Amino acid sequence: MAKINTNYNKLSPSYVFSEIGKRVKVFSEKNPGVEILKLGVGNTTEALTSTVVKGLLEGVKKLSNIKTYTGYGDEQGDTRLRKALAELYQKRGISLLPEEIFISDGAKPDCANISSIFDESSIVAVADPVYPVYVDSNVIAGKKLVYIECTEENNFIPSPPKEKADLIFICSPNNPTGSVVTKKQLKAFVDYALKNKAVIVFDGAYVEYITDKSLPKSIYEIPGAKKCAIEINSFSKWAGFTGVRLGWTVVPMDLTVEEAGRGKINSLWNRRQTTMFNGASNIAQEGGLAVLSDKGQKECKKLVDYYMNNAKIIKSGLSKMGLKVFGGDNAPYIWLKVPNNLSSWEFFDKLLKEAHVVGTPGSGFGGKGEGYFRLSAFGHKENIEKAVKSIQENLKL
Amino acid sequence: MAKINTNYNKLSPSYVFSEIGKRVKVFSEKNPGVEILKLGVGNTTEALTSTVVKGLLEGVKKLSNIKTYTGYGDEQGDTRLRKALAELYQKRGISLLPEEIFISDGAKPDCANISSIFDESSIVAVADPVYPVYVDSNVIAGKKLVYIECTEENNFIPSPPKEKADLIFICSPNNPTGSVVTKKQLKAFVDYALKNKAVIVFDGAYVEYITDKSLPKSIYEIPGAKKCAIEINSFSKWAGFTGVRLGWTVVPMDLTVEEAGRGKINSLWNRRQTTMFNGASNIAQEGGLAVLSDKGQKECKKLVDYYMNNAKIIKSGLSKMGLKVFGGDNAPYIWLKVPNNLSSWEFFDKLLKEAHVVGTPGSGFGGKGEGYFRLSAFGHKENIEKAVKSIQENLKL
Repeated sequence: MAKINTNYNKLSPSYVFSEIGKRVKVFSEKNPGVEILKLGVGNTTEALTSTVVKGLLEGVKKLSNIKTYTGYGDEQGDTRLRKALAELYQKRGISLLPEEIFISDGAKPDCANISSIFDESSIVAVADPVYPVYVDSNVIAGKKLVYIECTEENNFIPSPPKEKADLIFICSPNNPTGSVVTKKQLKAFVDYALKNKAVIVFDGAYVEYITDKSLPKSIYEIPGAKKCAIEINSFSKWAGFTGVRLGWTVVPMDLTVEEAGRGKINSLWNRRQTTMFNGASNIAQEGGLAVLSDKGQKECKKLVDYYMNNAKIIKSGLSKMGLKVFGGDNAPYIWLKVPNNLSSWEFFDKLLKEAHVVGTPGSGFGGKGEGYFRLSAFGHKENIEKAVKSIQENLKL
Repeated sequence: MAKINTNYNKLSPSYVFSEIGKRVKVFSEKNPGVEILKLGVGNTTEALTSTVVKGLLEGVKKLSNIKTYTGYGDEQGDTRLRKALAELYQKRGISLLPEEIFISDGAKPDCANISSIFDESSIVAVADPVYPVYVDSNVIAGKKLVYIECTEENNFIPSPPKEKADLIFICSPNNPTGSVVTKKQLKAFVDYALKNKAVIVFDGAYVEYITDKSLPKSIYEIPGAKKCAIEINSFSKWAGFTGVRLGWTVVPMDLTVEEAGRGKINSLWNRRQTTMFNGASNIAQEGGLAVLSDKGQKECKKLVDYYMNNAKIIKSGLSKMGLKVFGGDNAPYIWLKVPNNLSSWEFFDKLLKEAHVVGTPGSGFGGKGEGYFRLSAFGHKENIEKAVKSIQENLKL
């Protein structure tokens, strides 16, 4: 008799974005014709750049010709793309072998699947508030979680866990708070991991939004990190690939734990991917190569600048109203302290009703997110400006 | 201290295709200039059809324009594609809701991930020989496996397991044997599952290769199957999408087990996918819509016919030599009884040495595959003809 995985019953019943969808739908039905301004989801909105489009078209055209057609590629990804990513790291002073870089269909699946190569008794440390995937995927797998509180007191920056932890997820620049760990702060994690033989999973999906050059764009900027850290990254937010689907995960050969010597953890992820994944789309990978070309890099930088300008508009617009805002300087997210002691969801309803603006309740990212609110800089500039203006004119503080 | 998932140590150390790669490499280095003819891998080789290429190009072009750009779509897939697939089933007399169909990046990941929504104590029945993904993914998850022997005696057709099983994987048309279950044979599985409250996972990745109209193309052709079966399918072998990456999984609302009432298992897979997956590429999905158009259907039928003609060439060519061959009539795989009591790998080496042809040792698919050999009909017709001719002229029987 088949039984279900009852760990699913331990998950929060509703994902925050589906609840948002429901409330927006109810509001729209009650208020037909009202334009709703969305600063809610971290979804890219601007067109792909011309070089990248060219790469993707080339990818399709190759498949239309028997001489250039390709079927299954290596599950680990196109060697050209693995090499191009190794070169990107090299430019930043980090030496990686192409074999240490695994191409995937995005950071989310990798973040959700990476724990599966570790023992089910592993204790997993995550920040609170945090991107829900780290929590939910480990709850489903039956792993125990411990939380690192990130509050106004510590500038929303996590510190190594006080409890024993075997796996530690760090997202920097952070979703949802927009905070970024310094090299010194990241070094504390590396020291903890080396001392305790723990493994860090560093999610760098937003590193291209870092403007302050002193902040680390890769955990491998920290000496010793290759011995204790996996890095996950993505083309999504940087090149507009949220719908194209392309990411990568670095598992260094040097990464070891007591029972797994040099190369072993790399080989486990290799086996996981070759067994349970069949490679990212060859079209998307051609696009990824275009992103990593010199021209592609320049164009994608402009894309990032565009969203970062939006972040500035939101942050300065809300600051002027006397609201307390965090993040937004090196990240596309603005983390707002909800005024008047309202709950996150009360503020959601108020903002929707009064200003017709949709954001994301901080409580959707964990208990310590209660009383906060995430605004996303992903959107067309004119809509961002309209939303900020509407908040300034209509929100009753 | 992080520990690894030691279930990985229980896996066979080397995947059959990497061993093949190694042996071919050694042979090539020793015999420079010798053309090696590959009938080994189930990888499509012909260009995408014009309608499908048009669809994919359209998909890319949409992303190049701010007015048609899309980022993240629904994790469950584009509603248009889910509806188009529901219509495909409807044409075959099967009614499914779009909400019962989940778009994925291919059948392999879904086959590997589906067990995770069931309890880890689940006993999993698989055929022997079998597509390695069902076995390996469940070994990694720590689930217990029982095997259903598929031999010449039973025409390589599995019967419901004699032992208690909670999950049963069926692949029909079968990879590697090319055998196809009849409706009556499939009904026996449905009866078993309904009686024992087991869940069947039906992998139909090759159903478009069925030419005998009496054979089932979907498990839902069997009354009662919606109550006990999940169906996984793919655009890979049918439309040449092995590298494009697109598939789907059907989890009917009616599928229940004792502790999970109507819609619950559907909701578990929905939660799994929304938590751990971020949707198939929007470009690939546009291509999928083109495949499902009337014109696309006609073109892809020709593609299938092309490979099936290859299968005929292999089967009749080898039969004429007096070799015992199975499959190939409703599947792109020919299952060869290895002559002279050689082992599968001995025959691999002999075939490579004497005829310069690469195939897949049956033992790579399980113990009961020992003494058999898989030949794949995926290839250019002229290469298939060349390979068969070389076997006829050079293989010493």
